[in-house]
Formats: sequence, structure tokens, C-alpha cells
Amino acid sequence: MSEMVNVAVDAMGGDNAPGEVVKGAVEAVSEDKRVKVFLVGQEPVVREELKKYNYDAERLEIIHATEVIDTGEPPVMAIRTKKDSSIVRCMQMVKEGQCDAMVSAGSTGAVLVGGQVIVGRIKGVERPPLAPIIPNANGVSLLLDCGANVDARPSQLLQFAKMGSIYMESVIGIKNPKVGLVNIGVEEEKGNALTKETYPLLQNCPEINFVGNVEARDIPLGVADVLVCEAFAGNIVLKMLEGVSEVLISKIKAGMMGSVRSKIGALLVKPALKRTLKGFNTDEYGGAPLLGLNGLVVKTHGSSKAIEIKHSILQCIAFKEQNISEKIKEQIVLCD
Amino acid sequence: MSEMVNVAVDAMGGDNAPGEVVKGAVEAVSEDKRVKVFLVGQEPVVREELKKYNYDAERLEIIHATEVIDTGEPPVMAIRTKKDSSIVRCMQMVKEGQCDAMVSAGSTGAVLVGGQVIVGRIKGVERPPLAPIIPNANGVSLLLDCGANVDARPSQLLQFAKMGSIYMESVIGIKNPKVGLVNIGVEEEKGNALTKETYPLLQNCPEINFVGNVEARDIPLGVADVLVCEAFAGNIVLKMLEGVSEVLISKIKAGMMGSVRSKIGALLVKPALKRTLKGFNTDEYGGAPLLGLNGLVVKTHGSSKAIEIKHSILQCIAFKEQNISEKIKEQIVLCD
Repeated sequence: MSEMVNVAVDAMGGDNAPGEVVKGAVEAVSEDKRVKVFLVGQEPVVREELKKYNYDAERLEIIHATEVIDTGEPPVMAIRTKKDSSIVRCMQMVKEGQCDAMVSAGSTGAVLVGGQVIVGRIKGVERPPLAPIIPNANGVSLLLDCGANVDARPSQLLQFAKMGSIYMESVIGIKNPKVGLVNIGVEEEKGNALTKETYPLLQNCPEINFVGNVEARDIPLGVADVLVCEAFAGNIVLKMLEGVSEVLISKIKAGMMGSVRSKIGALLVKPALKRTLKGFNTDEYGGAPLLGLNGLVVKTHGSSKAIEIKHSILQCIAFKEQNISEKIKEQIVLCD
Repeated sequence: MSEMVNVAVDAMGGDNAPGEVVKGAVEAVSEDKRVKVFLVGQEPVVREELKKYNYDAERLEIIHATEVIDTGEPPVMAIRTKKDSSIVRCMQMVKEGQCDAMVSAGSTGAVLVGGQVIVGRIKGVERPPLAPIIPNANGVSLLLDCGANVDARPSQLLQFAKMGSIYMESVIGIKNPKVGLVNIGVEEEKGNALTKETYPLLQNCPEINFVGNVEARDIPLGVADVLVCEAFAGNIVLKMLEGVSEVLISKIKAGMMGSVRSKIGALLVKPALKRTLKGFNTDEYGGAPLLGLNGLVVKTHGSSKAIEIKHSILQCIAFKEQNISEKIKEQIVLCD
């Protein structure tokens, strides 16, 4: 049992909680014997959902928490006052070492604040970045920071680059991941004060494989595995990716329904289209880790279904087995 | 002849110059009798291209300029030293009042620098924004600033909002255009120092129709007609839109070629797909105006074909006839 990966799951977080969260947790423990899940939330409703499934009760436990943090609540206040909320309880289990990791589809703000205040930063980490996996033409990239704290310093971006490289190599399995600095031009002298100061720091850091500035236009082509930027820029990259994909796909689908001819064509291309769009989807990579904390905190989409919850839980295995926190601790002090 | 709109066109600028530029100019003068074009560039090559067409020679004139500014050249140096380049000559014609406007598909940097240094800013305008038209689910939005100068001040963003509103209403024809501030959340208190300071300025300006913060995810839905941001953010919005669209469309097309079944389907949906993608294209709106100058400077894509050159020339008519420069002069001093 010593090798078991213990994951606290916020059973009350997200648009589809508790149903899809419970389902995802059951699927995770069924798929991988190395994981034990603690479903944290209001016991009666969680138990009711669990009744639908057969599962190994030794590896799926309910932890009762009376309160729920809503997505609309001011995060700092919510974390401070709702001590018996599912998010706060999950975080305390990580902090106290009862769990290695936690997964929540709930309030992003509360997860970010709680991660720093309750779980706590690894010594030396200036700011823990929220790092979603985004799809590109040939695979995926890690985009960091997409958190709530904007206006980062160059030294923080350097830390993002190091933590992101460790994550992509050890958890996602990309050897010697290429690190790019998100910028408005590829030349070294391009950009704002932040990118100009950050560029030489990245270039002179032997622990990372820096490939230079990356223009937003080239991000979907997958020119870098780790994309470094401050959170305002990161948020725009992430949200434009989501927004443009959705609008374009819905327009294409609607366009095909315009005539009998194209309707027949649409039926014929449907399987191929579905396969293509599945390739441009990151559900199977799990949620976005909040890196640099004393334990893993994973934030999944508020709209997560069971499949995303399952993969978010499973990604915690590699995180623990690869000793990511130890690797971050070792590297974070280098070339600072 | 007094009502004629005189447009200087950089015949040497862009990947497809002079061929497509000359073709676009011929098409523009053929389509609208109110416009006269001065094709500025190396006379022998421009004349050679012109030989291919029939056109009204009274409204299409060649102005010889010996030099060409390459896109790779440092812009400030190029503008300073290449006095007889097509871009500099175009700008001087606008400055001296010989032309009302100019169009170039050449070096963005040189157009931005030359616009400020040679054509000059309208008194009171702090920074002239580059304002491309971008497609959305229901039409188009104006995105400003996408220029080379990052880290704008709140007062500059307020000016962008006013100039953008005038342009969308008078040139594109959208009544009382909705102005949105590009941000990482919709709530007033969200964002970085710049957006937090800019929000109340926009809210308290009676000349614009401010609808609040706009998240990047909602930009492609068309929730605002005028999108205000500083140039680093604007560049990411624009380039992500281009990059995601290209990758997604090429993946969908490639996906359809995967089997015989979907190949047949692809043939059937092709016209509908083409129509849909045409609707998500802004060629017919012309290039991006550099607003707030003493005359109109239009920058079109480096890859512009004749159709974009034509529309870029034709958009100058509305700009002049609607007295945009006068309107900007009047409004720029209000609510500052």
C-alpha cells in the first residue's frame, strides 16, 4: 500500500457535479490499481451517486464535507470562511500528506488561492503557475501561466520554463521539451519590457531547451512544447484557442446543413470529421496542474465530464511516481 | 475632379508585388469612378504589369520611385535613409495633400514608423493604433491596437475606443458600435493595472457605447464591434485567430481525404465549406487602417492578392467622404 497514489477529488465542483465527478472517480480506480480516490463532498448525495456503480471499496472512500464553494464567490473570502467546503478539505488532505494530489472542477479562483494559502508553495517558487495542456497540429503544448495573477516578473517566467519542462518531460513524456517565449515577433529584441528581460534569462539557462520567441500565429502549429508567458497573455491564448475552434466548427457544421447535396456529404465525412476534432482535443491529458506546490493540485474545466475527471486523476500517478515535486525543488534554485 | 479620392498605392510592397498590386489598382479604378490611384514604384516594372490591362489612364498614374524597403529591414533606419522608396514617397504624397490616403502591403514596421514620422499624428492623438478588421460569427469587429508599440496608457486606450467607434460607424456602417475592453474576466475588477484603470475611463465616456470587459473566448462570437486593448494583447488575439483557423481548416481538409467514403463526402460538402470559410474572411473589408493620422494610411496583409488591394483602395472613399479625420479631431479632445 505504500506505493498507492492517494488523490482527493472535489466531488462538488463543476457544472456536472457530483454525477460526472463520481463516475470519473469510479472509472479511474477501475482502470489503474495504483490509485486510491477520496471523494470529498456532501456524503448523502455522493453516496447516492456511488450506488450506481460497482467498484473496489478499498480504493474509493467518501470524505464528508458540508459546504460548497460556488464559482461566483470571491475566492479569498470563500477559502477563508468555508473551512468545511470540499475544496478546502481536499487541500488540507494534500497539505497534511494524507493525499499526494487533488483534483477539482470547481471555482478556479478558489483552487488558485487555496493552492497557495493551504497547500503552500515549494520553497523558492515565487509564483505557482496554472498550466493547461493545449492541442496543436501535431500533439500538445503546455501553456503557462494561465492563472489569476497577472504582470509576472522575468524571474517568475524563468521558473515557469523550468517547471513546465519538468512536467512535459516526466508526466507527458516529451524528451527535452522545446521552450518558447510567447511574443509578438520572433526576433530577440521584439516585445514588451517583460519579454525583453526574460529572453536572456531563458537563453542562458542550461536546464531548459529554449528555442526563442514564438508568435501566437505559430502556437497552433506546435513549434514549442512549453509556452511561457504571463497570465494575461496566457489567458488570451487559451481563450482564443477555445473560442475560435468552437465558432469555426459550429459554422462549418451549420454550413453543411444548407443544401441536400452538402447534407449527404456531411453524413459521409462525419466519422472523419469527428476523428479529426478528437485529435484537436485534450480531454485525455487531464486537467491543468498548478505547479510548484507541496503536492499536486489539478484544475479541470468547469464543464468536465467523467472522462476528464478520470484522466485528471490518472495523471497524478505519473506526477508522484516521477517525483515531480522533488525535481522542481532541485531545479528551481539553479540559474536563478 | 474636386471630389476625386486620390490614393497612393505602394506598388512594390508585399509578397505578390507588383503583379497583384497593379491588378488590384486596375480593378479599383474600374469599379468606382470616384477614385484615382497613383501607383508608386519602379516605373519599368509597374508599366510592364499595367500593359496587361485596359483602364482609364486619367485615373491611374505611375509615380516613379527607385528604392524598395524590404520587410526584413529595421524600419526606423529604412524610413530615414530610403527617401526614394515607394513607401516613403506614398507617405509624402499624403502629407503634402496630393493624396487623401495610401495603401501598402509592404513592411508593417516601415508603414507604422513612416505613418507617425512622415504623415504625422492629428493634434491630440497620443498614439495612432493599427486597427485590423477581424471576422466573427456574425460579421466583423475592429481590433485596436495591433501595432508595434506595446505597453499603452489608459488614456491611449480611451482614444482607441473613440477612433475605433468613429471608423466602425462611418466606414463599416455599424450604428452605435459596441465597445469592449479585452480582458481576462468580465467583472470590472478583473485584469491587470492597465485594464483596471481603463475601465472607468471607457465607462464614463458618453461618446462611446461601452459594453464592458470582453473575454478572449467571446471575441469570435462577436460580442463587441470595437475591441480595445494594447498592442501586445491585440497581436496575440489577431495571430491566434489566424493560426487556429488555419490549423483547424487544414486538419479538417486532411481528415476528409483519409478514406474513399469521406473523399466522396468532401466533394459534396466542398461548395458549402468554401462558402462558410468565405464568410469567415475579411478580404472584402480592405486592410487595417492606421488611425489618428493626418490622412489615411492602410496596411494590408503582406500576402495580399488583388482583391484585398482593391478593397483597401475602395475603403479610402468612405474614409474621405465621411470626413473621418475631422470627426477624430473633434472627438479626441472630449472626455479626456
